[in-house]
Amino acid sequence: MILTDFQKLIKEKGYDAFIVTRNNMFLGQDILPEENKLRALTGFSGSAGNLLVLPDRAVLFVDGRYELQAAREVDAAKIEVVVTRESIATWLQNNVFENLKIAYNPWCHSVGETDYWNRILKRFNFVEDKENLLGIRPANKECNIFEHDIRFAGISMDEKISMLTPYIQKNKCDAYFLAACDSVSWLLNLRSNCLPDTPILRAFALISAQGEVSLFANDFTKLREELANYNGKTIGMAYNNTPRAVFSLMKEQNIWIENVANPILNWKAVKNPVELDNVRQAHRRDAVAVCSFLHWLEHNAAGKTELDIVEKLYAFRKQGQNFFSNSFETIAGFAENGAVIHYQPTEGTNLALKHGSLLLLDSGAQYYDGTTDITRTVAVGTPSQEMADDFTTVLKAHISLSSALFPEGTSGQTLDVLSRSLLWRQGKDYNHGTGHGVGFFLNVHEGPQSISSRSSQTPLQPGMIVSIEPGYYRAGHYGIRIENLVEIQTAGTETPMLCFRPLTLVPLDKRLINKYLLTEQETAWVNDYHSRVWTEISPLLNDQDVGNWLKDACTPL
Amino acid sequence: MILTDFQKLIKEKGYDAFIVTRNNMFLGQDILPEENKLRALTGFSGSAGNLLVLPDRAVLFVDGRYELQAAREVDAAKIEVVVTRESIATWLQNNVFENLKIAYNPWCHSVGETDYWNRILKRFNFVEDKENLLGIRPANKECNIFEHDIRFAGISMDEKISMLTPYIQKNKCDAYFLAACDSVSWLLNLRSNCLPDTPILRAFALISAQGEVSLFANDFTKLREELANYNGKTIGMAYNNTPRAVFSLMKEQNIWIENVANPILNWKAVKNPVELDNVRQAHRRDAVAVCSFLHWLEHNAAGKTELDIVEKLYAFRKQGQNFFSNSFETIAGFAENGAVIHYQPTEGTNLALKHGSLLLLDSGAQYYDGTTDITRTVAVGTPSQEMADDFTTVLKAHISLSSALFPEGTSGQTLDVLSRSLLWRQGKDYNHGTGHGVGFFLNVHEGPQSISSRSSQTPLQPGMIVSIEPGYYRAGHYGIRIENLVEIQTAGTETPMLCFRPLTLVPLDKRLINKYLLTEQETAWVNDYHSRVWTEISPLLNDQDVGNWLKDACTPL
Repeated sequence: MILTDFQKLIKEKGYDAFIVTRNNMFLGQDILPEENKLRALTGFSGSAGNLLVLPDRAVLFVDGRYELQAAREVDAAKIEVVVTRESIATWLQNNVFENLKIAYNPWCHSVGETDYWNRILKRFNFVEDKENLLGIRPANKECNIFEHDIRFAGISMDEKISMLTPYIQKNKCDAYFLAACDSVSWLLNLRSNCLPDTPILRAFALISAQGEVSLFANDFTKLREELANYNGKTIGMAYNNTPRAVFSLMKEQNIWIENVANPILNWKAVKNPVELDNVRQAHRRDAVAVCSFLHWLEHNAAGKTELDIVEKLYAFRKQGQNFFSNSFETIAGFAENGAVIHYQPTEGTNLALKHGSLLLLDSGAQYYDGTTDITRTVAVGTPSQEMADDFTTVLKAHISLSSALFPEGTSGQTLDVLSRSLLWRQGKDYNHGTGHGVGFFLNVHEGPQSISSRSSQTPLQPGMIVSIEPGYYRAGHYGIRIENLVEIQTAGTETPMLCFRPLTLVPLDKRLINKYLLTEQETAWVNDYHSRVWTEISPLLNDQDVGNWLKDACTPL
Repeated sequence: MILTDFQKLIKEKGYDAFIVTRNNMFLGQDILPEENKLRALTGFSGSAGNLLVLPDRAVLFVDGRYELQAAREVDAAKIEVVVTRESIATWLQNNVFENLKIAYNPWCHSVGETDYWNRILKRFNFVEDKENLLGIRPANKECNIFEHDIRFAGISMDEKISMLTPYIQKNKCDAYFLAACDSVSWLLNLRSNCLPDTPILRAFALISAQGEVSLFANDFTKLREELANYNGKTIGMAYNNTPRAVFSLMKEQNIWIENVANPILNWKAVKNPVELDNVRQAHRRDAVAVCSFLHWLEHNAAGKTELDIVEKLYAFRKQGQNFFSNSFETIAGFAENGAVIHYQPTEGTNLALKHGSLLLLDSGAQYYDGTTDITRTVAVGTPSQEMADDFTTVLKAHISLSSALFPEGTSGQTLDVLSRSLLWRQGKDYNHGTGHGVGFFLNVHEGPQSISSRSSQTPLQPGMIVSIEPGYYRAGHYGIRIENLVEIQTAGTETPMLCFRPLTLVPLDKRLINKYLLTEQETAWVNDYHSRVWTEISPLLNDQDVGNWLKDACTPL
């Protein structure tokens, strides 16, 4: 679709404007390249943005991360770029004073979002584009859908549904409409290979109060038919994550709709004992792959490029049992590329490794028995004193949070500063959160919990998994990040407290640790961690050379 | 006023209920004992609470701190006690389903609070008691009002008013009504001796957009007359801190009323350079008094009681230049009394000091040139290992926050955990905030800034003063708290950061420091602090014995 064609189309239909997002109908989930209407219309390839199309112009809204990229990718003659943290609604409120008729695709916006528009932007007339001018459709046709085996998932679909039905009944609903497709995947123990790094099944589910489940992955006419059975009855849904189109379909059927929170968000975040056992094993297996890679790198760095690194690491991981895919596109940032936080190497940016700088390597895998995500920063050749001191600062920040105890009810928002303050002490900081939640053979970024200075007020609970990943980025020189996944456990203290226990078991590059900057407790943390790595990983290594490398990497400071 | 008489009265007037608070018209400020209607009606003497009086019963609402005290003080046959953190509105919403006519004194509740009642409790009819059945009146008759000299205040009244008038004009108001009496005191450089420990002038002010000021301290008929001049004009006020009665008086005069935030809150919180110079000197003088007392205590503890301590400390402070009063009732809690967080010794609880426990001493003074607040915990006789270890933990918590650097925009809410996490590491905690803002010869607790895990989102700014006061309380045994006031300054780091610098300069009891639990940096912090105490305080001491004591107290660990 070309922008000018689309503009003609909306003029024909009598709309004054049209709101386009990057979302498909699985709101907030990743999308396939061919689903990206925002990119098709503007050329902008970033992972977040909104577009307001008017008959004679267009306005692209991006956040600060994408300022440069948008300027590079977008034709400024046709499209104005607005860099803002505000929502499109706030911008409309402050900048457009005519009474516009604004259309949007009701599959790409939630009930909550569109309710908000209608509430605060009374001078506009928002209308659903029921003709689907953008051509939004479920793109699961060629996907393979498969069952996630109970020996991985730990709880059967039937058991999970029997957790949900009392909740539906308690909320006085006849059924619950589940639009969050990662929740659907968890509930039904189903996965697919539709997206490259995220094995979610992209589907909606309708679960009756008696536990019958209808699944909608491809054919949405079936949804309308199914809803006809609920005429005059009550269906619950989470307004903030269900497409407006579903709401409207229900209204057509005279269904009573209740805004009922999705309880699976929390059930899914707290891993069950079988999942925990599994994910610990998956991390040991991942450690074998990463250690094998790091050993290889030590002897083969010369002449290799970032893309070689990406390929080689994938080759090691692929050999592991239960391997399914990477969990996201590998970030291999050498030297100055490491300082670009969301960098991914391409043919155009691909650097060859040289002695005397740092490689930042952020990668992970989807195993049937768990999802991994690890960042190690390693020296290529001899690092400078400044590199080692900066690495040690980030290490101190990592340890400070990693070794924290905290009472039940504590949120990641409260804890973020325990890492960040170690950077602040040196007038430094990192421009990203300290950690994110992680799914189980699902999204590598999966809340509701996270560790960030804002919007992470969900209390951390035993069984949740989060990353701890402070960093430091010296623009034009190098980037440093140290990331482990950790599980939240109950600490064995007199009064009950919670603690983090690393799942990730790969040694830190000791060439980058200035031990004179560490306190006794910090040194002990590093030595204990390395001792655990050696104990748990060395028995799994088949290659004697890798074993020797690991032994050396794990000797005490 | 007896409860049963009041109940008869409200029945006569046709009210179904009456809401009584502990406030007078100076909302949120401390009150004189004779102003405490809550106590008069119920016997409850706590510092916060609400009472719902019905014709045949009464319900007293207190928070968790006062559960035991309320049970002890209140006649359960006549008054039901509800322990809750909820507001009275939330309780009414959830517990009373009749359509009651509920009266309240419009001088004791803000516009914001009563608006909230009307908004969420539509089934009740809230009416202002214009007859003043409770007899609320300004009780300034016998107070001495005096000017706060410019050499203390740093900025003249005229200059302050010329900061305010552009703000009034910018908000398109003809005048601003200032109900916050500490803001009035600051604006007009006026103080009074009305309250025992807080030298605020208890008065309202009306400031015209041209800068004319009318003050209302005693005669509120004058207020009505003055408002008559604003018929048809616009007056700004902060709804959350202005009595409903003032709003209603304005409405009677056909005045347009705008909800305009009080800008003085922030101006007053950021001390000016003259105030900062002054308050540093006041703290040195306060240190002389406290050091002299601690030296005295070391030789005279035997046989003394907590009340003797309170008296003696006051006697030392009173000798200081510019001394006006204590800044709050001294907390001298020996042994198990120290573990009661809001303890103040009385004849009934007064313990005599004995060897082998701890004295927690929290006190402060109002000097014309600044307000102080300090807590020191000292050993009487030889402390146990457990006491020293606990003290050292609290010291580590104190140092962790005190030595933090943080960027502009950081709130106390973010920083609270930097202290608290040191207790958490041992499965311990303290059930109070880590710090509060402090006024300048005004309230010893004065926001908007504070350091607490909640409700302290105001960014800390250079020139603000806060306390840092983590603690640990071993119920039935002893209490520990280490409190310094600190000013917020710009740190001399490459990238701009903020830091805390102690104003309080009194040594910590080294007998209670287990130096083997401190890191090098923590030890260095203690030694640097003590070195600064010695350098700044020793020249001010006249008594050679106290000098020798201080020298010893300040030698390095």
